[in-house]
Amino acid sequence: MATDLDIARAATLRPIAEIAARAGIPDSALEPYGKYKAKIGPDFVAEASARPPGALVLVTGISPTPAGEGKTTTTIGLGDALNALGTKAMIALREPSLGPCFGVKGGATGGGHAQVLPMEDINLHFTGDFHAITSANNLLSAMLDNHLYWGNELGLDPRRVSWRRAMDMNDRNLRDCVVGLGGATQGVVREDGFDITVASEVMAVFCLARDLADLQHRLGRMIVGRRRDGTAVTASDLKADGAMAALLRDALSPNLVQTIAGSPALVHGGPFANIAHGCNSLVATRLALGLADVVVTEAGFGADLGAEKFLDIKCRLAGLNPAACVIVATVRALKMHGGVPKSALGAEDVAAVERGAANLERHVENMHKFGLPVVVALNRFDSDTPAEIAAVQAAMARHDTQAILCTHWSDGAAGAAELARAVQARIAAGAARFQPLYPDAMPLAEKLRTIAQQVYRASDIVLPAPAAQKLARWEAEGFGHLPVCVAKTQYSFSADPTLLGAPSGHSLPVRDVRLSAGAGFVVAVCGEIMTMPGLPRRPAAESIGLDAAGQIDGLF
Amino acid sequence: MATDLDIARAATLRPIAEIAARAGIPDSALEPYGKYKAKIGPDFVAEASARPPGALVLVTGISPTPAGEGKTTTTIGLGDALNALGTKAMIALREPSLGPCFGVKGGATGGGHAQVLPMEDINLHFTGDFHAITSANNLLSAMLDNHLYWGNELGLDPRRVSWRRAMDMNDRNLRDCVVGLGGATQGVVREDGFDITVASEVMAVFCLARDLADLQHRLGRMIVGRRRDGTAVTASDLKADGAMAALLRDALSPNLVQTIAGSPALVHGGPFANIAHGCNSLVATRLALGLADVVVTEAGFGADLGAEKFLDIKCRLAGLNPAACVIVATVRALKMHGGVPKSALGAEDVAAVERGAANLERHVENMHKFGLPVVVALNRFDSDTPAEIAAVQAAMARHDTQAILCTHWSDGAAGAAELARAVQARIAAGAARFQPLYPDAMPLAEKLRTIAQQVYRASDIVLPAPAAQKLARWEAEGFGHLPVCVAKTQYSFSADPTLLGAPSGHSLPVRDVRLSAGAGFVVAVCGEIMTMPGLPRRPAAESIGLDAAGQIDGLF
Repeated sequence: MATDLDIARAATLRPIAEIAARAGIPDSALEPYGKYKAKIGPDFVAEASARPPGALVLVTGISPTPAGEGKTTTTIGLGDALNALGTKAMIALREPSLGPCFGVKGGATGGGHAQVLPMEDINLHFTGDFHAITSANNLLSAMLDNHLYWGNELGLDPRRVSWRRAMDMNDRNLRDCVVGLGGATQGVVREDGFDITVASEVMAVFCLARDLADLQHRLGRMIVGRRRDGTAVTASDLKADGAMAALLRDALSPNLVQTIAGSPALVHGGPFANIAHGCNSLVATRLALGLADVVVTEAGFGADLGAEKFLDIKCRLAGLNPAACVIVATVRALKMHGGVPKSALGAEDVAAVERGAANLERHVENMHKFGLPVVVALNRFDSDTPAEIAAVQAAMARHDTQAILCTHWSDGAAGAAELARAVQARIAAGAARFQPLYPDAMPLAEKLRTIAQQVYRASDIVLPAPAAQKLARWEAEGFGHLPVCVAKTQYSFSADPTLLGAPSGHSLPVRDVRLSAGAGFVVAVCGEIMTMPGLPRRPAAESIGLDAAGQIDGLF
Repeated sequence: MATDLDIARAATLRPIAEIAARAGIPDSALEPYGKYKAKIGPDFVAEASARPPGALVLVTGISPTPAGEGKTTTTIGLGDALNALGTKAMIALREPSLGPCFGVKGGATGGGHAQVLPMEDINLHFTGDFHAITSANNLLSAMLDNHLYWGNELGLDPRRVSWRRAMDMNDRNLRDCVVGLGGATQGVVREDGFDITVASEVMAVFCLARDLADLQHRLGRMIVGRRRDGTAVTASDLKADGAMAALLRDALSPNLVQTIAGSPALVHGGPFANIAHGCNSLVATRLALGLADVVVTEAGFGADLGAEKFLDIKCRLAGLNPAACVIVATVRALKMHGGVPKSALGAEDVAAVERGAANLERHVENMHKFGLPVVVALNRFDSDTPAEIAAVQAAMARHDTQAILCTHWSDGAAGAAELARAVQARIAAGAARFQPLYPDAMPLAEKLRTIAQQVYRASDIVLPAPAAQKLARWEAEGFGHLPVCVAKTQYSFSADPTLLGAPSGHSLPVRDVRLSAGAGFVVAVCGEIMTMPGLPRRPAAESIGLDAAGQIDGLF
């Protein structure tokens, strides 16, 4: 069978200026990066983003399982199918992180006949955005430690530094370290650690900034640590915001690439979906909305995390009005939610599908709470039986929701045509009445409780006293209006990754809370959240290399 | 007075395809990075590099002083002047490191009317080469620690790991650290540290590789540490060389930019001139030689370090045959070598110039030992008096060498026209009889002694027993044929930075020796060598930012 890489290499790419022209982007606005990638300049971005917006369609998913769902391929397939039907559609996706490419995950550019290209470039350095973000993050660290070294005028407590260094690499050995060793001329000894770049607050700031000025403003207000009296020290106190913004200037211009079918896709920014909000840059989304009649975008993890944050953080902040939501599911994944182990997914099990459909139903109900019409995309596998498919469709009928079979992985745009027509119909009907889950004015703990009860169906939250005190302090400091970003396992509605299906009545244990003052949200850490992944025993990197023609082999 | 940035911004840049066409590079070979930068694809690079080479001219300098000499501006000015005279000339320079931009140094793209453009881009991320090198370096570290974590099959001694992590940042707090803290699931505790990216062996390998295959081969043979029995573990033992080469694939394509006058310039690679060899990539040099009649290139520091390494490491390795050498000096710097403090440089002092000229004379003699004809470029300052200039010219006449006044900083190409004519004459005379200083077969300690006695005019070297034992071991391991790369202060012929002028009879104290098995040289560390700089009390970063139009301010 052809691999994703085989299919990607067999595709004929069009010059990026041709893709840009289709999307209504003039040559003068393009900064080419090779023949098939381009950044779009800030003047045009500002002008186009001010136009009346197209319809925004969010692709999200059920609670993910090891069986795989195919959210990114569906986002791409839907965009391709809309274009094939004559709707002017644009795709907006996150940039992949370099780290996971060398671990187990492989690339993050779709798959089969629903891919964005050139896949090797996008998966490796692409246009350098993540390197710029890493540099900006680490410049702030260097300036912070330099400030301590030269006498610490700001009175920052070295034990209360919350700012960590970053690297775009899966490197567990950097999670916790002691820096500044070697004596008085070498630095200031303190505990530190590295997060993977996508977990840096700089990434979240980058993805929520409206423009360069807003970017610098948000960078400046990031809190790097506190004094002994508890007052905050910011990046702007360290005078680091200007140089950080300079490092990020070019990166903030969105990246244009193409799908195998030639649809224009903006691939820009990529924050973690746990300690951050998990969707592509606001700059790219707004540009796409200004250019296209329909914009198809994606949020990380399942709808309880990804969609909730997309709606309550990004859409709230930017005043975006999504028109519809697509929830991706597979029969195989629903069977796992129904209790079938991965090894037994090949056999028909209608009852398991029916049980597991509770997970999908819960997500559909949740999206309805936000006022969004839903279409379910059922990503077809060869092993799916008619009875299993019918069981999903029957469950969805109870929620007045269509579950549409999709085969874009093998068939490209044609495989998502029915899905595209259903989405077109929802947009045309104008049924969306988007509203965030909670008002800005609600107290922080109450916001967290609302998410837990309304979306996760927990009976309550468990908020330890130190966390509650932090929330109270931030409210006193003027951060009470911020939305809450929950970092919990993506595998369950609860904080227990083994509770599949649609659990309810659990309680949500909050381990810690963190303030992302620059990005503009409060993070509630529920359970163990990894901000620096490790490599497996046999990393994918061992098999990556160059073939005789200098092409990159081993990315998948 | 107009700053470098003012002059750079006032210049009208030509589309990079136009510059490429002038240099004989077809459109099909260009990978544009924006409108004014391009990488040149490997197929064309291979074809053009195989053509009969043009004449190679090395620009080097006297021992540097705080008064400044202007090596990069002279390299650019000479290239511009040769083109203005109708010689097809190309310039090959190092890429600047991001780190120093945020410290005190400012940019490294020339100055005045002798600059390569676009200066903000070249000084910041440029085409991402250094980020790729940083990533490759750190992927190797991550794979190494991951190997230890999963059971250490190779039997690497964690205390004997010599491979360090890298960051393109001035960050003293990362010089020495302890990584892998946090318990058994977090990693393996060991001492580590970060070097600035330009000090990484990956950078040296990158700059000495002939092509992608050679790059991967050299990466693979890099030694990352040793077992308890002392045997070496390499990057190839860790199976990291393929993925590292994949990360560096695009980076190895040389970068084309333009000077203010429109000359084509390849700016590619940039290893430190102390623990590495300090000149731009071999790939860029060979490409330029295939394209141009004259290639003007530069080596770091003074001729005792930069030129010696360019000749004994790079030219030896690649079979390059330089045609002439330009040594840059200023009256002001010679006065400092003659004992005048920086504060008194404004006053005429012919005797000091005569004393300080001994430094220049020594460098000229040294270049003659390599069989190279020399022209001295005397970078003119307003404060230079006719008597001082005459003193330099008289000293040079004793060595049958012209000292030519240059004003390219203020006058561009016209200010280096006389220098260019002198260089043309040396090339036309075909007087060069290049030979390296020592044969490959000479024992390592003897090579070091030869450099110390012939170039630095030391009476001998002081080689501690542990260092001598290492050299003996490496000879037994088959590394005895490698050249020696001396890391010592650039401010003096001796290892004492305060010994200006032309000291002799000193001894060269060797502190340590290191094996760069991938790059292919043995480093002799003489004195304190900094592989990770720090930031000053008031870093330049504090003044860097974006103006209202989104342009970068504060780079200089």
